[in-house]
Amino acid sequence: MKAELLTIGDEILIGQIVNTNSVWMALQLNQCGIAVTHMSSVGDDVAAIVNALDAASTRADLVFITGGLGPTKDDITKKTFADYFDAPLETDEEVLESIVNFFSRRGRETTLINRQQALVPKGCFVVKNLHGTAPGMWMQKKGVQFISMPGVPYEMEAMMSNIILPKIISENKLPHIYHRTILTNGIGESALAELIESWEDQLAAKRIKLAYLPQTGMVRLRLSANGPDLQLLREKIDAEVEALKTIAGQYVFGYENYGEETPGIAKVLSQLLRERGESIALAESCTGGYVSSLITAIAGASEVFKGAIVPYTNLAKQELLQVDPNIFQTTGSVSKECVIQLAEHVRQKFNSTYAISISGIAGPGGATPEKPVGTVWIAVCSAEKTQALHFQFGEHRQRNIVATAAAALGLTRKFILKEE
Amino acid sequence: MKAELLTIGDEILIGQIVNTNSVWMALQLNQCGIAVTHMSSVGDDVAAIVNALDAASTRADLVFITGGLGPTKDDITKKTFADYFDAPLETDEEVLESIVNFFSRRGRETTLINRQQALVPKGCFVVKNLHGTAPGMWMQKKGVQFISMPGVPYEMEAMMSNIILPKIISENKLPHIYHRTILTNGIGESALAELIESWEDQLAAKRIKLAYLPQTGMVRLRLSANGPDLQLLREKIDAEVEALKTIAGQYVFGYENYGEETPGIAKVLSQLLRERGESIALAESCTGGYVSSLITAIAGASEVFKGAIVPYTNLAKQELLQVDPNIFQTTGSVSKECVIQLAEHVRQKFNSTYAISISGIAGPGGATPEKPVGTVWIAVCSAEKTQALHFQFGEHRQRNIVATAAAALGLTRKFILKEE
Repeated sequence: MKAELLTIGDEILIGQIVNTNSVWMALQLNQCGIAVTHMSSVGDDVAAIVNALDAASTRADLVFITGGLGPTKDDITKKTFADYFDAPLETDEEVLESIVNFFSRRGRETTLINRQQALVPKGCFVVKNLHGTAPGMWMQKKGVQFISMPGVPYEMEAMMSNIILPKIISENKLPHIYHRTILTNGIGESALAELIESWEDQLAAKRIKLAYLPQTGMVRLRLSANGPDLQLLREKIDAEVEALKTIAGQYVFGYENYGEETPGIAKVLSQLLRERGESIALAESCTGGYVSSLITAIAGASEVFKGAIVPYTNLAKQELLQVDPNIFQTTGSVSKECVIQLAEHVRQKFNSTYAISISGIAGPGGATPEKPVGTVWIAVCSAEKTQALHFQFGEHRQRNIVATAAAALGLTRKFILKEE
Repeated sequence: MKAELLTIGDEILIGQIVNTNSVWMALQLNQCGIAVTHMSSVGDDVAAIVNALDAASTRADLVFITGGLGPTKDDITKKTFADYFDAPLETDEEVLESIVNFFSRRGRETTLINRQQALVPKGCFVVKNLHGTAPGMWMQKKGVQFISMPGVPYEMEAMMSNIILPKIISENKLPHIYHRTILTNGIGESALAELIESWEDQLAAKRIKLAYLPQTGMVRLRLSANGPDLQLLREKIDAEVEALKTIAGQYVFGYENYGEETPGIAKVLSQLLRERGESIALAESCTGGYVSSLITAIAGASEVFKGAIVPYTNLAKQELLQVDPNIFQTTGSVSKECVIQLAEHVRQKFNSTYAISISGIAGPGGATPEKPVGTVWIAVCSAEKTQALHFQFGEHRQRNIVATAAAALGLTRKFILKEE
């Protein structure tokens, strides 16, 4: 099966936003064995949209359209679709009900503009929008499927994952593809590639593909194979995962299920704490609340997270967390001594099982000859033990914050599992 | 003048890389007054490339092509170009010399594959590549200009900035395009659209385009117009921005410079505090450190940010921030009474000019019939005054956190400017 992606919206053509929807869709479709052969972007312009639909229909079996479905006046897409399929727009009562509910739950009136979002071309298959008000519309013309979705990424992604892809897979007999993605932390892409080189080299003969998916603080390894027998694919790939773990198991912190969001190290750590009935507290200086925000982003955080203090000044470290002021004169606040006191005192303050403390120089300011930008100290402690480690990250402030968070959470997971 | 962008390469179609080249080119071309009307991506496939060139030539004056010129792929792509323009490939001696120099400077031999990069279609204008070995090729067919460049971003960007754009601008008398983007906060897209409806309706007659660019916690409004006189365009659009401010000024917190990163509300607030020599501290419950992480993500945060406490439990609110424990029995921790005490006490603890406090139910758990998921109280205070406001957001945990942060920061900016 061949698919094309069409993005509608002036904001793409003037370079105001990066087209990440196309990347996400291309990945998902390729993983289902559907080849994406063409992508295009046009503006909010009737003739351009009609021409793009016509051109796509001569080449592809499936045309995925995003954007142009917002409630405001710059969006002419829906009217253009209806005309293209010679179908009048009519109100879908189910969609209207969900729109009215959407606003009433927020204590707001449903305006006329909102109500117009329930209009869909007659005869189309309506794709429910669980996260917004614009429905998806699945239409057909001369054997080609056209699927129109909103441009808001999380709305589109939910429609694709929950409704559209399962429907396409079940209605067409697509070959099986099996993926397994391994999450690693605490090692960079190049070092990991060297470590697992001989294991990687033998994958090709088994027709298994390996992809490195690096991001700050985490490298994901995706193994993929396809064939007629899903069980066989599963066994083949699972055996390779086990082999990898004997080589690089100390860096593996979890796995990603296909079609689901990547469980970051914060989620894996939260799960571990929940299973053990334990809790955590934080003293974050250079990360400024970022690590806490990662933990509290996960539903049910209150079961494992007691709280945090962000002592951004030396005075706050001293007054709120009883750091010995002599430390600021001797080793400075970015030091082993300081993070040990921060961790132990914040654990006592929140009466948590474990505590993490972080002090570093995120940059661009604050560096000294001995402590360049990217210098970070992290401590983890329990009632029995405290561990402190030094890290040297790079020069980019936001990447230093993200890398520090990943290191702190990975270190804590190992500390709890006594793998450190 | 109309331009189209064509990207060649399988890596785009399988979702392996994000097409940032198109964004960069679109921005540059728009700034020169050249409208980009279509973007497309095809694979390393002769028929697909020829079809894309044909289609583009019927619509555009300029076609910018990137990718497909690497030393391993150019057998297909460059040959396809040459055939398309009925021009045989021949070695450009100047390019060959620069390739040989490129490798000898790196102490390497020039291989046959490298030498083939000096082949260009006969009669083309060769665009020098200062940063790599694949030359750009500028061809013409039936009045349409085709400019082919390598896909490596810095190679393409140098060619565009130094050679291609100056040549286009000098050879054509181009109309100017002027954009201005207004940042709003504290109002949703639909409500904003209704508020400014009559203002919006009169823009078309003035040939000004308006686009809504919504995201959680912010709606950007982009005004665009084109014409021969840049000064006139600027005056025309600036006058509309002023008119808009009389209607919706209370929601406007800043402007985005075209081609630069959007300054979020955290950045605008930090800048305001820096200008006034003032500081802030936070007590964040349901946002769990997220607001602090936004403020500390900005370089120089230590000048304006004193620190934060994340009291995720009632006990922590009581012990660390002296919230009256009777509150938990009466109004509960998600209440006006609680956030007022949190804000005032955290301000005193950090001795900051202002403080923000937040308590709410991010979800999915923790709701009661009176306080559904999305219920949030926010307080802002100075030494003289405390203000507390109730918000009702939606059902999605992470969006509630992001929306709460935007509301808290927007409210604080107004509080400081006494616009509340």
